[in-house]
Amino acid sequence: MLEFKRGLFIGRFQPVHFGHMHAIKSTLSFVEELVIIIGSAQFSYTVDNPFTAGERVEMIKLAAFEEGISCDRLFVIPISDVQSHSLWVSHVKSRSPSFEVVFTGNSFVKLLFEDGGFEVRNITLWKREKFNATEIRKKMIGGGNWEELVPKSVADFIKKIDGVRRVKIRVSND
Amino acid sequence: MLEFKRGLFIGRFQPVHFGHMHAIKSTLSFVEELVIIIGSAQFSYTVDNPFTAGERVEMIKLAAFEEGISCDRLFVIPISDVQSHSLWVSHVKSRSPSFEVVFTGNSFVKLLFEDGGFEVRNITLWKREKFNATEIRKKMIGGGNWEELVPKSVADFIKKIDGVRRVKIRVSND
Amino acid sequence: MLEFKRGLFIGRFQPVHFGHMHAIKSTLSFVEELVIIIGSAQFSYTVDNPFTAGERVEMIKLAAFEEGISCDRLFVIPISDVQSHSLWVSHVKSRSPSFEVVFTGNSFVKLLFEDGGFEVRNITLWKREKFNATEIRKKMIGGGNWEELVPKSVADFIKKIDGVRRVKIRVSND
Amino acid sequence: MLEFKRGLFIGRFQPVHFGHMHAIKSTLSFVEELVIIIGSAQFSYTVDNPFTAGERVEMIKLAAFEEGISCDRLFVIPISDVQSHSLWVSHVKSRSPSFEVVFTGNSFVKLLFEDGGFEVRNITLWKREKFNATEIRKKMIGGGNWEELVPKSVADFIKKIDGVRRVKIRVSND
Amino acid sequence: MLEFKRGLFIGRFQPVHFGHMHAIKSTLSFVEELVIIIGSAQFSYTVDNPFTAGERVEMIKLAAFEEGISCDRLFVIPISDVQSHSLWVSHVKSRSPSFEVVFTGNSFVKLLFEDGGFEVRNITLWKREKFNATEIRKKMIGGGNWEELVPKSVADFIKKIDGVRRVKIRVSND
Amino acid sequence: MLEFKRGLFIGRFQPVHFGHMHAIKSTLSFVEELVIIIGSAQFSYTVDNPFTAGERVEMIKLAAFEEGISCDRLFVIPISDVQSHSLWVSHVKSRSPSFEVVFTGNSFVKLLFEDGGFEVRNITLWKREKFNATEIRKKMIGGGNWEELVPKSVADFIKKIDGVRRVKIRVSND
Repeated sequence: MLEFKRGLFIGRFQPVHFGHMHAIKSTLSFVEELVIIIGSAQFSYTVDNPFTAGERVEMIKLAAFEEGISCDRLFVIPISDVQSHSLWVSHVKSRSPSFEVVFTGNSFVKLLFEDGGFEVRNITLWKREKFNATEIRKKMIGGGNWEELVPKSVADFIKKIDGVRRVKIRVSND
Repeated sequence: MLEFKRGLFIGRFQPVHFGHMHAIKSTLSFVEELVIIIGSAQFSYTVDNPFTAGERVEMIKLAAFEEGISCDRLFVIPISDVQSHSLWVSHVKSRSPSFEVVFTGNSFVKLLFEDGGFEVRNITLWKREKFNATEIRKKMIGGGNWEELVPKSVADFIKKIDGVRRVKIRVSND
Repeated sequence: MLEFKRGLFIGRFQPVHFGHMHAIKSTLSFVEELVIIIGSAQFSYTVDNPFTAGERVEMIKLAAFEEGISCDRLFVIPISDVQSHSLWVSHVKSRSPSFEVVFTGNSFVKLLFEDGGFEVRNITLWKREKFNATEIRKKMIGGGNWEELVPKSVADFIKKIDGVRRVKIRVSND
Repeated sequence: MLEFKRGLFIGRFQPVHFGHMHAIKSTLSFVEELVIIIGSAQFSYTVDNPFTAGERVEMIKLAAFEEGISCDRLFVIPISDVQSHSLWVSHVKSRSPSFEVVFTGNSFVKLLFEDGGFEVRNITLWKREKFNATEIRKKMIGGGNWEELVPKSVADFIKKIDGVRRVKIRVSND
Repeated sequence: MLEFKRGLFIGRFQPVHFGHMHAIKSTLSFVEELVIIIGSAQFSYTVDNPFTAGERVEMIKLAAFEEGISCDRLFVIPISDVQSHSLWVSHVKSRSPSFEVVFTGNSFVKLLFEDGGFEVRNITLWKREKFNATEIRKKMIGGGNWEELVPKSVADFIKKIDGVRRVKIRVSND
Repeated sequence: MLEFKRGLFIGRFQPVHFGHMHAIKSTLSFVEELVIIIGSAQFSYTVDNPFTAGERVEMIKLAAFEEGISCDRLFVIPISDVQSHSLWVSHVKSRSPSFEVVFTGNSFVKLLFEDGGFEVRNITLWKREKFNATEIRKKMIGGGNWEELVPKSVADFIKKIDGVRRVKIRVSND
């Protein structure tokens, strides 16, 4: 019997990488089910948010399959930002199945959910300096080896939708 | 080998009932994976939309489990309305994994997706006069036997969150 | 010593009438300070919401002065609607000084605040069939004696801004 | 020399009909240039607003050409609604070239622009019971002779985009 | 008899400080009543806008009481930004009791209200380099003596809601 | 016979300058009619977007007249931004008469319209380092000769509305 019935994990997943998958697997040892929130869902085709919410949903599914995680234990839900931070916890609550605990490595997310009355568990992101989306997008732009930082199925998907071109063009126009 | 890689099915699921589940199972005989869009996700606590998007996600999961449908073949994605109908197909596309075909029994949804360049298949909703959400909410208000029209796990969930009270109060205040 | 430090009272005040003032005075016997929320603040020049939020603020001030209520005990705060009812309690909390109790005669407001974790006290609106804004606007349109239902300073204010013309024109155009 | 440098005329143009064209031509005998505002520009594919803003722009151009009105004297500008009526005049001002006078047959539009400090001229709509868009859409649905109520180029355009189907489907789904 | 019936003063009040109170008291020697607009009301929990609109309302009340200013002469109204600057003056007008004069030390606010047809009086902010909210938030982050720059009741309130933690966390996450 | 029935050209026109007019004239040798989209229409009175959409419409009309371009071949349509780039092409389509080709010198606009299924033609902007709006606004602020970079009627219009003051004040307040 796991410690919690259901937990919450939040990311932007631009793109999904091994750091995310490591955190998700760790979290799944504490909870029976995990709600994965895809934040800033309204953005795409920007420097920081190249992929649409739908593409990010698809990447998470591909990565979960590749890593042997059953979708029966996951909920994957895209959520747009709200302008007012003080409404954000309520916004997440209204779009998510009920949850008992939030897993995050971000002290601001921690503050908001604690002020909203939730239990929050700190998670340490695995090799964060290496596995983080900003670095991966930089490697995409500069021609570095970004493929080794993401699951193979995710790398293939990004190539199929010509995702690197999207990131590069955006930077050259800003 | 199924006919399509991925299809789309749209509903408001207020609440999930046997008509939905019948349609989803029929559709799954044509597609390998099905994207289930929860429409009007921004509404809750209204007469027509009593349940939050998160509650509706949870009901679909419960019903799929009860009916023996694996979540590995499903994507369940809440989507808010957009004010302009001419943007709606693009909005759905941006929030959903890519899909090749739309299944719908609604001629307006058909028109919008056809004008957006998609293949649309008509589906006939099973015993629509009996299994439809408006009738179910009416039975909730009037004290009829609504439980027999929805999967047992969905009925239990609605009772747990005191959903019938919510529907009744709203009506008495409008 | 009063029972609560601070309470909340919500209305649309289209326009302010004796029913509102009666409720506010009753409430002030339980709380040291009262937050008066002007709901649907974004609307004006409509059939149901003829007056701007600013005009409604001014009417409340005039009526409080006429009734001998010190503004030192009141907060008067206009709040726009939010599209999603499940965000509304958080929205009110973020725009209002903190409060411990909500006074309302509306069972839907009661439900939302109770689901949001607040204590809610029922208030019975005084002679509601006579003192209610819908009836007052009907009398304005039909030429009835609406002035006797509102404080004199409010009636004078409505005449000064030609408020009755506004209500009448709107109806004739809908 | 005409009386005014520039005037404003507002409609929804769902669709453009002879009543609109008659009013525009009358107005052009008072002003050197006329700004034609296409209101409720955000709507399309609804019962009351079947055509997109772009389609309505195109219809006005076609009708002006057919009626021999030079586009050099016209500005045609789609404008979305704003939620708050008290902001609407400012909204129109910010989207339109400056204008000195408003021509309208609607007493509510008159009230808003007069409260906003503009000169407003009443126009009497020509055979309004016959030439009005609601009646035209009803004829489209019921199979009546709507074509005789609109310029020929507009009727041809509506047929080309299959506009009647759009109006009919929407009604059958509501 | 004072020069004006009612004036307007605008600030973000993040947080309320002695510079604000000095300006408000000066202004009250020209007007019988003062409307205090709390701008950017939709923001909170950001680096530049740590406090909610409701918290800022409460701070102004506390400071007014501490400084001996009667609330009977004040209106305190939170207002969200609008995306379009050309609508902002109309937005303020619709949310505020009518006013005859605007007091501001900001040349952009002056431009907008002058273009909107209002009389604008320049006010010189008292010791602006010392009493300004940006400096106060910097001191909160760096551990400086911010308490001496705000009324004691405001400092106590900020401590009660753990406001300094909020400012610090936000900075460390940006 | 020209190559295309109708093309699209997009700019922000802050302000209209000779580079725009050169591009518009070049484009008119390929298309019978040209839709000119005024982007970011919701902004005005900012550093980057000093002029309202309405002022920009007026400038384009003035410049077209000065350059001898008949308005009968032009559509000039202001369009607000949408938050989500993946909806932007649909947004433009819904607000514009139908078009077959897009002319742009911007690789991001090219990407979006190509992903949306449109033919896109590259245009080389004429002496871009000299004729661009950012440089023109800098000259306005710094006192340089901006008038020589825009059509004379546009320069006269900017002076009439005191546009340079607007640009300067905004900068000094940011």
